[in-house]
Amino acid sequence: MKVTVLVGGVGGARFLQGVKSLLGEDDEITAIVNVGDDVWMHGLRICPDLDTCMYTLGGGIDTERGWGRVAETWHARDELAAYGADPDWFGLGDRDIATHLIRSRMLRTGYPLSAVTEALCNRWKPGLRLLPVTDDRSETHVVVTDPEDPSGESQRAIHFQEWWVRYRAQIETHSFAHIGAEQASPAPGVLEAIVDADAVILAPSNPVVSVGAILAVPGIRSALRTTAAKVVGLSPIVDDKPLRGMADECLSVIDVETTAEAVGKYYGARSDTGILDGWLIHSTDTATVPGVDVRSVPLLMTDPETTARMAAAALHCAGVDL
Amino acid sequence: MKVTVLVGGVGGARFLQGVKSLLGEDDEITAIVNVGDDVWMHGLRICPDLDTCMYTLGGGIDTERGWGRVAETWHARDELAAYGADPDWFGLGDRDIATHLIRSRMLRTGYPLSAVTEALCNRWKPGLRLLPVTDDRSETHVVVTDPEDPSGESQRAIHFQEWWVRYRAQIETHSFAHIGAEQASPAPGVLEAIVDADAVILAPSNPVVSVGAILAVPGIRSALRTTAAKVVGLSPIVDDKPLRGMADECLSVIDVETTAEAVGKYYGARSDTGILDGWLIHSTDTATVPGVDVRSVPLLMTDPETTARMAAAALHCAGVDL
Repeated sequence: MKVTVLVGGVGGARFLQGVKSLLGEDDEITAIVNVGDDVWMHGLRICPDLDTCMYTLGGGIDTERGWGRVAETWHARDELAAYGADPDWFGLGDRDIATHLIRSRMLRTGYPLSAVTEALCNRWKPGLRLLPVTDDRSETHVVVTDPEDPSGESQRAIHFQEWWVRYRAQIETHSFAHIGAEQASPAPGVLEAIVDADAVILAPSNPVVSVGAILAVPGIRSALRTTAAKVVGLSPIVDDKPLRGMADECLSVIDVETTAEAVGKYYGARSDTGILDGWLIHSTDTATVPGVDVRSVPLLMTDPETTARMAAAALHCAGVDL
Repeated sequence: MKVTVLVGGVGGARFLQGVKSLLGEDDEITAIVNVGDDVWMHGLRICPDLDTCMYTLGGGIDTERGWGRVAETWHARDELAAYGADPDWFGLGDRDIATHLIRSRMLRTGYPLSAVTEALCNRWKPGLRLLPVTDDRSETHVVVTDPEDPSGESQRAIHFQEWWVRYRAQIETHSFAHIGAEQASPAPGVLEAIVDADAVILAPSNPVVSVGAILAVPGIRSALRTTAAKVVGLSPIVDDKPLRGMADECLSVIDVETTAEAVGKYYGARSDTGILDGWLIHSTDTATVPGVDVRSVPLLMTDPETTARMAAAALHCAGVDL
């Protein structure tokens, strides 16, 4: 069986663990991973979502924090701060830096990100295929009211990481721009993984800056609309609140309500102009999305068992027999 | 007073501490630092001698080891090894990496090494001016019998760091090559620091791969021969053994005996074709170097006081009144 999952970072990685626990060795799981958060910092290429998936599935994640390496130390970060190096609001862990050093070196040598990811996964053995949605630079930037302009009149675009990590999304925000997305192509294997799949799942990741950034790459949306597999999404919104992260801040920027129904409608039905066949919402929620098979199931990834049951419900909704 | 010192790493840095302790705020000390050991590793530009001087004078050095940062940790190094990253014989410390990240980023942006060094010294405040001998790439490579050729017949050139750190100089060695030196120019201020000095000192650094690599940069030797200041060297060889490091292995490659006299003759007298006016050897050694004022003084840098007395003896030999 071939299952393809579109994912962001922490929530997506945990959901992938659930999918992996359900399937056998002969099954093929492909994760198509958001690269919109990727950024050059201190001369290193950081790929937060790819690394979160890789570390989570490979057993190297800090499970408390949800991102970064377990038993991490922060000496290089503290030294960068002592030098006054810019930016000072992003913490690179000492263990994590090794990953970025290898990646940056390979990228500078000319390897595409997908090949770099494969090389890094040779160590981590995540047990499924991690594919960046594109090898091209497609970064999420955020148009905000310039926080450094005292008049509050000028706008400026900052990298998503700056918006997310430095400002915690707590500044006046006008829009998202997927810089480079229009010129980007899906990485090798991405379109095939969608078109040839037996089931395609949208993880309960941020619909705007994770799944949305994946959809911004030309070709992804039409592959989702033409695949013979059913496409099933899981709501990241439970009881009108995001499961984690700041999806509400992101949704409000694009004028979508923070409800499971509104996000389902935002993705839309394949029978209309959207991408969903099925939409899983939490047991206590209700939603009507025209043309979409909406099902209520427990959507809390509190432990491996509940996560596996979520994944099973998604595959069941996609018409796949386990 | 203007004092200019040609230095390598650990020994040179300690000697600079001695010079610094003797002079006042109005005096100008310039260290012209070897860059032959510099190397790209894991995409980072490492400058061992510059960093050893900077950390030693700025209070950040591990005084036990003599190089690298105090309270260093090695998590990134261990992770690089877990990835199987090449090279696996060079240990980058976590704190140290911050320095390399800033340097590499600035170099890639187009700043010359001398400007990068000045920026890094804004933090460390070494109390004197650290100048790389050149902003150009001038690296010491070593021609060895290929350790990976079972026939033992082929030769190959390896970077000095590989010879020194990986092989501990314990392989058959034929010659040194200062790659890029012929096309290199002295960094801004280097020639002036020699020509305008009141005294020029050659620290008791490795005469082949530290001072020798500095002398390989065109213009340095003739500046030493034409400066109005006296040029005084300190022997790194005491009792026919190097004070530290593997100067004997280096000297044997260029067919110079490991004695204070042989090294003095290797530098040679300015009145002949060499660079020395004075040559300090250890109290228990004897040496005759034609045309050079040879003086016996204690040359063991066992503590700050003895190091300061060495520096005072060198300045005195150079005809400078403290």
